[in-house]
Amino acid sequence: MNKMDSSLKQLKVKGQAAKAASHRLAYISTDIKNNALLNIASDLLTRRGEILAANKKDYAAAKASSMGAALLDRLMLDEKRLEGIAADTRAVATLPDPVGETFEMRTMPNGLQIGKKRVPLGVIAAIYESRPNVTVDIAALCLMSGNAIILRGGKETIHSNTAIVGVIRDACDRAGMPEDCVQFIDNTDRALVNSLLRMNDVIDLVIPRGGAGLINSVKENATMAVVTGGIGVCHTYVDKMADIDEAVAIVNNAKVQRCTVCNALDTVLVHAGIAKSFLPKMAAELDKAKVELHCDKRAMTILKSNKSLKLVPAVAEDWGKEFLALIAAIKVVDSLDEALGHIEKYGSGHSEAIVTEDYSAAMRFLNEVDAACVYVNASTRFTDGGQFGLGAEVGISTQKLHARGPLGLKELTTYKWVILGSGQVRP
Amino acid sequence: MNKMDSSLKQLKVKGQAAKAASHRLAYISTDIKNNALLNIASDLLTRRGEILAANKKDYAAAKASSMGAALLDRLMLDEKRLEGIAADTRAVATLPDPVGETFEMRTMPNGLQIGKKRVPLGVIAAIYESRPNVTVDIAALCLMSGNAIILRGGKETIHSNTAIVGVIRDACDRAGMPEDCVQFIDNTDRALVNSLLRMNDVIDLVIPRGGAGLINSVKENATMAVVTGGIGVCHTYVDKMADIDEAVAIVNNAKVQRCTVCNALDTVLVHAGIAKSFLPKMAAELDKAKVELHCDKRAMTILKSNKSLKLVPAVAEDWGKEFLALIAAIKVVDSLDEALGHIEKYGSGHSEAIVTEDYSAAMRFLNEVDAACVYVNASTRFTDGGQFGLGAEVGISTQKLHARGPLGLKELTTYKWVILGSGQVRP
Repeated sequence: MNKMDSSLKQLKVKGQAAKAASHRLAYISTDIKNNALLNIASDLLTRRGEILAANKKDYAAAKASSMGAALLDRLMLDEKRLEGIAADTRAVATLPDPVGETFEMRTMPNGLQIGKKRVPLGVIAAIYESRPNVTVDIAALCLMSGNAIILRGGKETIHSNTAIVGVIRDACDRAGMPEDCVQFIDNTDRALVNSLLRMNDVIDLVIPRGGAGLINSVKENATMAVVTGGIGVCHTYVDKMADIDEAVAIVNNAKVQRCTVCNALDTVLVHAGIAKSFLPKMAAELDKAKVELHCDKRAMTILKSNKSLKLVPAVAEDWGKEFLALIAAIKVVDSLDEALGHIEKYGSGHSEAIVTEDYSAAMRFLNEVDAACVYVNASTRFTDGGQFGLGAEVGISTQKLHARGPLGLKELTTYKWVILGSGQVRP
Repeated sequence: MNKMDSSLKQLKVKGQAAKAASHRLAYISTDIKNNALLNIASDLLTRRGEILAANKKDYAAAKASSMGAALLDRLMLDEKRLEGIAADTRAVATLPDPVGETFEMRTMPNGLQIGKKRVPLGVIAAIYESRPNVTVDIAALCLMSGNAIILRGGKETIHSNTAIVGVIRDACDRAGMPEDCVQFIDNTDRALVNSLLRMNDVIDLVIPRGGAGLINSVKENATMAVVTGGIGVCHTYVDKMADIDEAVAIVNNAKVQRCTVCNALDTVLVHAGIAKSFLPKMAAELDKAKVELHCDKRAMTILKSNKSLKLVPAVAEDWGKEFLALIAAIKVVDSLDEALGHIEKYGSGHSEAIVTEDYSAAMRFLNEVDAACVYVNASTRFTDGGQFGLGAEVGISTQKLHARGPLGLKELTTYKWVILGSGQVRP
């Protein structure tokens, strides 16, 4: 048997083990799951020696391969970061267990009791890139929602992830969870990912976390369900009836507070009736963070007298672009309808906001914009599981089926219909 | 431009028209949707002349092509059947509108009001086979749930469907619905279906209705979400502690009441401790409908003395087979665990039942069986949108994501997060 065949065989063994573990996990008590998470949190700290030693190996190898400083920083673990990861894990243990909830239970005229019971999805595979905290993060959320998990991290963090998964499995075992509920693919051969994506007999859902290349490749090749988010092209429409100071603060926060994430602002649409009073104030505020403004003709005419601004004439590619940087596109529109049309054409269905004091404009925006999250008078930066009160998230979905927006514990579950009879037959 | 290019262009025009209509449909009032359905119901009867004339053409062509009697019967419309279809449409209009429901609304510590609002999926495409009533049925459910619909029926019913869709569009228009919310693909070229399945820019969900060939082909080729059910391999486990008369009635109903449908019984698993008293009674009852029993060795030993029964030794292929006929496989098991193992191995995740008076056995079965619908002491034939109180269904899902079991109006919707602020920004 050559090396690839042996890895493939091992992958299938791990898949079967995860599936077998998932059966018991499906109805394990909340206490046991909570204890497993608390064990993980404490073991990450008591066994920090082996984790940090493994991480040093990854770091040294990455540095030798001339990885950039930003990526090196994402890969690096130290005691403080481990404490943060442990705290996040303890926080998941405080969330309500979504599994077992019975809902929509009714008694039919024939006496049948029919309702839905929330159950885990089964086996979830996560395919992700360099940050080792994702290993703990995803495992904690999947275990808390009763799912077995198959983890496939990046090759840059192979030593860190191996050490961390060892800790997680031991911690699960000590709490009375089947340790096979966490599986780790320690072979980072890419061909093996494609084999994984064909294992729809054991895997119920794949979650890719990483860049657009990874996400698109998983989407195209997976034979099971995939939940992805990824691209957020976010607009804020400043209506004619906006409170100008509020609009400046919201636009500034949405663009500047953290510009490298999917819920950050990309395009400001501003009504022509307020553009002359709003845009100079907005531009002055954004300029404090050196935001580059890609302006349409009318915005340019309004702003160009201020020579200190970083102004660039907008080109067609600026509309619908996710900048992930301190850049914003600015367009003046003549009506709410034009703004809605622009968002429909260029939005990615992630997060869209209107700033207005006009009740009817706010209601129309809420009704007519088709996106995971639609805001009135707030920053799109709030699109986040923690901010929405879900406690934690595995990602943000821009799909319409199953779950939309931040994916918390509940979104990692499904339901089954339970029917309690007393001998009923269908007439 | 050749014929195919022109059809493809027309398909894209229809797709765009459906998408444009879906925007207005998304927030149209319940009154208008109800009126459209009531108009459809009455127009189907007042315009029965043109519908029945079109149906006669389809029937004549099908007969000339030597279509079998069962298929011919499915294709045929008469006044009584039109009255039935109209009544079903009126029934959909009495169901609660799922769209617009706001739920899980909470106020966060910073004053943001965050919640979910139920909205239509957008544009749904239905690809289905010969029965013309499906055209009305699916259109009614999609319209009531606020979705635009693209219908692609079989070529055998092209005249009937063309007439029916004409009636539906006029009825929608008269009620104030955009008539473009219902699109009909009148070109039955198969290549065009593949083009349709690539239109993920306008279609949010595809529902295939028909045989396994159609369903698998749609699943493989669709670039958008697909909800399918299809195969139901249904077990009934008769536990050691079952009430024998109740078990006989339930097994008989599940097998005999309508054997050609997905929720009909395929395999009886019976505990060895009750097999000798149960199986002869069950076999005698099933024999009244001439059910053929595919028996494992132990069941055969128990039953073979009754020479009037239709007994066949079970072969490996009988386990996990959806018979869709008056055939049942019978297996004697030594424990609940063995029954659960068999169901896990051979079930299709559709409907599974236990008959028992043992509380703990019932609870274990409910917890441990992973299927869309899990029954205690009732016939699996109840798996149906109408029987479950959903009013109507577009199908039965055996998927785990989005929706499981009967798909009613609510399952044709999604939600968006709505966030009502007063100037909040993220710290």
